[in-house]
Amino acid sequence: MPHLLHLDSSADLATSRSRAVTAAFADTWRARGEEYTVTHRDLHRDPLPHFADAEQHWPAAARRPGANPPAEQDALTATLHAEVLAADVVLVGAPLYNYTVPSTLKVWLDHLHIPGVLAGEGSQPLAGRPAVVVSSRGATYDAGSPTEGWDHGVPVLRIVLGNSLGMDVHVVQTSATLADRLPEMAALKERGAAEFQAALAAARELARTL
Amino acid sequence: MPHLLHLDSSADLATSRSRAVTAAFADTWRARGEEYTVTHRDLHRDPLPHFADAEQHWPAAARRPGANPPAEQDALTATLHAEVLAADVVLVGAPLYNYTVPSTLKVWLDHLHIPGVLAGEGSQPLAGRPAVVVSSRGATYDAGSPTEGWDHGVPVLRIVLGNSLGMDVHVVQTSATLADRLPEMAALKERGAAEFQAALAAARELARTL
Repeated sequence: MPHLLHLDSSADLATSRSRAVTAAFADTWRARGEEYTVTHRDLHRDPLPHFADAEQHWPAAARRPGANPPAEQDALTATLHAEVLAADVVLVGAPLYNYTVPSTLKVWLDHLHIPGVLAGEGSQPLAGRPAVVVSSRGATYDAGSPTEGWDHGVPVLRIVLGNSLGMDVHVVQTSATLADRLPEMAALKERGAAEFQAALAAARELARTL
Repeated sequence: MPHLLHLDSSADLATSRSRAVTAAFADTWRARGEEYTVTHRDLHRDPLPHFADAEQHWPAAARRPGANPPAEQDALTATLHAEVLAADVVLVGAPLYNYTVPSTLKVWLDHLHIPGVLAGEGSQPLAGRPAVVVSSRGATYDAGSPTEGWDHGVPVLRIVLGNSLGMDVHVVQTSATLADRLPEMAALKERGAAEFQAALAAARELARTL
């Protein structure tokens, strides 16, 4: 059965565009048929605790002698790995908060990026599997503008999911989400709305075809 | 009295190089005289909880109608602001975990980056104050190498502390910290050790002169 793992990390439960776009993807996925199933993990509503020990970055066999991370943290890593391994497509709602991923999403990435288990040459069980990153950004980061290159969220997701885990990363992006809120961004309202509609359409198209 | 705010975020309490370098800075600072005081906040040992509500990104007066983040979260923001405002120098231990800052450090940055309070034109009470970022990286990110530009930790700290808060950001950096651990990085052992010694020296020099 084609299975989707749907993650959200926006801390905004009322007006989040990343949540709206991931929901559009998941709804379209489900509409393909009863066999199109979904697991939803909300990294904001049910936040993962920060890593308790740096040795959690390594599989048990590669840890320093004496390393002893809490068993419940290792169990959590195993649960999160089982979730992604069971998914045919992984959908990641990733708002840009202060120029990188939310802290809640960062912890999930930390759990996933374990060399020798999910990451690194010769140990990429997720290689080639699609990951759809839904990136929502309050401002704009256009080439040639003063904030070009200030999005340090999507690149991290591309490196971890794409380069390290070998997944096939698709990015659906919407910008200027703060144009409705901040007077100084009012001129970007139409652009923000258009990008949002385009992101919804792109997500639905991917959900129909992946 | 010259006051230092010393933050660590490494999850490694045994062999962390970022912790060693921030400690070298703090020790040198204290050695300047009894009036050189230090507040230490350990973001790993005493982790800040993830944001409970996206409206925490805004000051109370700029929040959406009906927004009501938990009072204890707002109190935490106020405490963290008071800490940085009381400091003449802010020292930030920032290991690179999976290509950006640790989740624990990200939450601290989220609390700091509040437009109209600590951030943004016309509201930068920390403008010009020194921030020393101690960046410790397991691998290398040399210009011209395949991982050039994969460090998405220091740029975030530069944008938030430098551009948004207006602080005078100094970066002390050490790379190849995993050369002692990973056989495939063994050729980088000497470089890693040399960079570590250089970082210790650079931190001590800054602590003597800032």
